[in-house]
Amino acid sequence: MFDLIYQDEKTQARAGKLRLKNRAFDTPGFLPVATKGDVKLVTPDELKDIGAQGVISNAFLLYLRPGVEVIKEAGGIHRFMGWDGIVFTDSGGFQVLNKDFIIKMESEYVLFKSPFDGSKHEFTPEKCAEIQMLIDSDVALTLDDCPTYKRDYDQVATSTKRTIDWSKRFKSAHNRETQNIFGIVQGGVHKKLREKCAEALVEMDFDGYAIGGLSIGEPKDLMNQVIKWTTPTLPSNKPRYLMGVGSPEDMLEAISMGVDIFDSVFPTRNARHNTVYTKKGKINIGKEKFSHDFRPIDEGCKCYTCRKFSLAYVNHLLREYEYLGMRLATIHNLHFLVNLMEEVREAISKDMFPEYKKEFLKDYLSP
Amino acid sequence: MFDLIYQDEKTQARAGKLRLKNRAFDTPGFLPVATKGDVKLVTPDELKDIGAQGVISNAFLLYLRPGVEVIKEAGGIHRFMGWDGIVFTDSGGFQVLNKDFIIKMESEYVLFKSPFDGSKHEFTPEKCAEIQMLIDSDVALTLDDCPTYKRDYDQVATSTKRTIDWSKRFKSAHNRETQNIFGIVQGGVHKKLREKCAEALVEMDFDGYAIGGLSIGEPKDLMNQVIKWTTPTLPSNKPRYLMGVGSPEDMLEAISMGVDIFDSVFPTRNARHNTVYTKKGKINIGKEKFSHDFRPIDEGCKCYTCRKFSLAYVNHLLREYEYLGMRLATIHNLHFLVNLMEEVREAISKDMFPEYKKEFLKDYLSP
Repeated sequence: MFDLIYQDEKTQARAGKLRLKNRAFDTPGFLPVATKGDVKLVTPDELKDIGAQGVISNAFLLYLRPGVEVIKEAGGIHRFMGWDGIVFTDSGGFQVLNKDFIIKMESEYVLFKSPFDGSKHEFTPEKCAEIQMLIDSDVALTLDDCPTYKRDYDQVATSTKRTIDWSKRFKSAHNRETQNIFGIVQGGVHKKLREKCAEALVEMDFDGYAIGGLSIGEPKDLMNQVIKWTTPTLPSNKPRYLMGVGSPEDMLEAISMGVDIFDSVFPTRNARHNTVYTKKGKINIGKEKFSHDFRPIDEGCKCYTCRKFSLAYVNHLLREYEYLGMRLATIHNLHFLVNLMEEVREAISKDMFPEYKKEFLKDYLSP
Repeated sequence: MFDLIYQDEKTQARAGKLRLKNRAFDTPGFLPVATKGDVKLVTPDELKDIGAQGVISNAFLLYLRPGVEVIKEAGGIHRFMGWDGIVFTDSGGFQVLNKDFIIKMESEYVLFKSPFDGSKHEFTPEKCAEIQMLIDSDVALTLDDCPTYKRDYDQVATSTKRTIDWSKRFKSAHNRETQNIFGIVQGGVHKKLREKCAEALVEMDFDGYAIGGLSIGEPKDLMNQVIKWTTPTLPSNKPRYLMGVGSPEDMLEAISMGVDIFDSVFPTRNARHNTVYTKKGKINIGKEKFSHDFRPIDEGCKCYTCRKFSLAYVNHLLREYEYLGMRLATIHNLHFLVNLMEEVREAISKDMFPEYKKEFLKDYLSP
C-alpha cells in the first residue's frame, strides 16, 4: 500500500510511504543493489545502521545461483539474507542487454544462458513470476523487453508491444497476494511508445510502475525528457520507480518530476574504485594528496566510516587494495545517498524541495 | 608488565596477563595479523566483538606504506587504525625470507627493496627501533636474522650470532619507556644455537621473548622439539611468543610447553579460501554439499556470523566470490581461535588444561 503524504507545490516532487506487510519504505528512497542476495561487502546490520529501508536483488541471478529451491528452503529471501527490510526483485529483463546472458529473444520467451555453466534457460513471463513468488520478495518486477538505446523506432515499437504483452501474462500468472508487482514502462526514447506502454500498464493496474530502459547510454537530456513524458501518464497514487539511476543530481532531477524510488550500483561500485560522494562533489580518495588528511571523508557526515576513520586511513587501505578500504568507502557512499533521500523527504514535507535541491547542487556541482 | 596468574601442574601451560599502559592482553592469547594496519576485511569494532585483545602489524611494511610520518601525524598506530587494543609490531626481520623484499644481508644491515616502487632501504637494528618507536606500538620486536630451514649448521650459527648482535644494538637504540621490547630467539633447528641465542637475549633482559624461525617448512615434530628446547631457557616471569603459529593443534601443543602468545595469518587467509575451523575440525564451506545446510557454520558458536547467517548463505556468497562471504568466514575463524584461547585460560585456571586439550583434539582431529 502506498500513501502519498506530501506533494510539493512548485514541482512534481512528492513524499510517501510504501507499506508491505510489516515493512515500510519511505519515498523518495534509494535501494542499494543486492544482485546476488548481498550488498557487496556490507551486512544487513550495516544497511540498517546506514538507514537503508530496502534493497533490490536479481531474481534471474538468484534463480541461477544458489537456485530458487535454496531460497525457498531458507524461508524466503529475507531469511536467506538475514535482512528484514524491503526486498525488490528485478525480473532479469535487464539482462537481455548483457551478452554474457542472452542467447535470443522470441515473442513468447527469452532464452538465457548461464555464465556459470553455459546451461540454457527459457524465461517466460509466467516462469519469471513463479520464481519471484518462490523467492518471496516484497516487490516483484515484471519481465520486460528492454531495447538498447540504438534501436530504431520500429524495433522499439515491437519491443514495447512485447513488454506490454509480457506484463499482462506476468500479472495473470501471479497469485501471491502478499507480494506487490510493479510493471516496467519501456518505449525507448520515443514519447508515443512510452505513453502507449504506460497507458497499457496502468490499465492492468499494477501496485507501482517502474521506468526502465534508461541510463543505458542515452544523453542525459534525453533521459530527463523521457521521465518528463512518462510520469504524468502514471497514476499519482502509485509509487514510481526509476530503475538504474543513482547519481545525486539525476535523482534530484527525477524527484522534481515525480519519481519516488531509485536503485543503482554506482555507490557500491564507485566505492570499490575509490570514488566517494561528498557534499562538495565526488572525489577519488585513492589519490596521494589525501594520504595526510586526517579529517573524515566528508566533514559533518554521520556514517560509520566518517565517525570512526580518517580519510588518510581509508586512503591507505585503498591504495594497498585492502578490502576493508572498499568496505568503508561503500558504507560511506550508501549512507550518502540514503541520507540525501532523508533530507529530500524532510525538504518536501516543509515545502522546501526546490530550495534544498538548488542548495545541494550548488555545493555538489561546484568545481 | 607481565603477571603470571596460573601455572598448570601437569604441563608447562600457564595463564597470565600482559599489562601495557591502559591495555591488557590475557595469555595464552592469539594476535590476529594486521600486516598493513588492518586485519583483512574486518573493523576494530568487530575485532573487539570477537574478543581479540591485540593484533600484530608489520613495522617494515608500514614504513614503506603509508610511511612512518603518516602514522606519527595520526597520533600513532592505534589512532591511525582506530583500534584501542594492544598492537605488536613485527620488525621486518621475517621479510628477509621473502624474495620480493630482500636484496642482501650484511653483518651491519639488511638491504630491502620496496615491492611497490623498487626503492632500496637499508635496514639497521637502530633504524628498525626508531621506526617502531615512531609507530608507537605497545610491543616492538627486535630485528632478527631469520635463516631458512634448509641452511646448514655453520650458516645458522653465523645468522644466530647476527641476531644476538642486532638484538643488543636494537635495545641500545630504543628509548621509549612506554613501549615493550620482545627479543626474538633464533637458532634454526639446532639445540645448541637456540640455547645460546636464548641465553644471550635473556642476559639483555627483554620484556618478553619471541621464538622465531619456526613454521617455515620444517617437520612438525622438529618444530615442537625446538619449542621444547627453547622455553626452559626463558625466564618464567616473562611472556613467550611463538611467532607465525596459529593452528589449534599446534597452539595447544605449544601452550603445554609454556608458550603464551601466538599470531598467524591462517585464520584470515584460510577464510578467504573457504576454509573454516569448527569444533569437529576444518571444513571447506565452499563445497556444494553445504548449499542446503541451514545450520550455522559451527553449531554452538557464538560469533556474529554463526549468530546471524546460515552455512548455506555463506556458502552461496563464497561460491559467488562475494567479499561479504570472505568477511563472514574471517570473523568466524578469528572468533574460533580467540575463543579457543579463552577456553584454554579457563581450563588452566581450573587445573584442567590436559583434559581440555585432550577433549578438544578428540573432536577436532576426528576423521
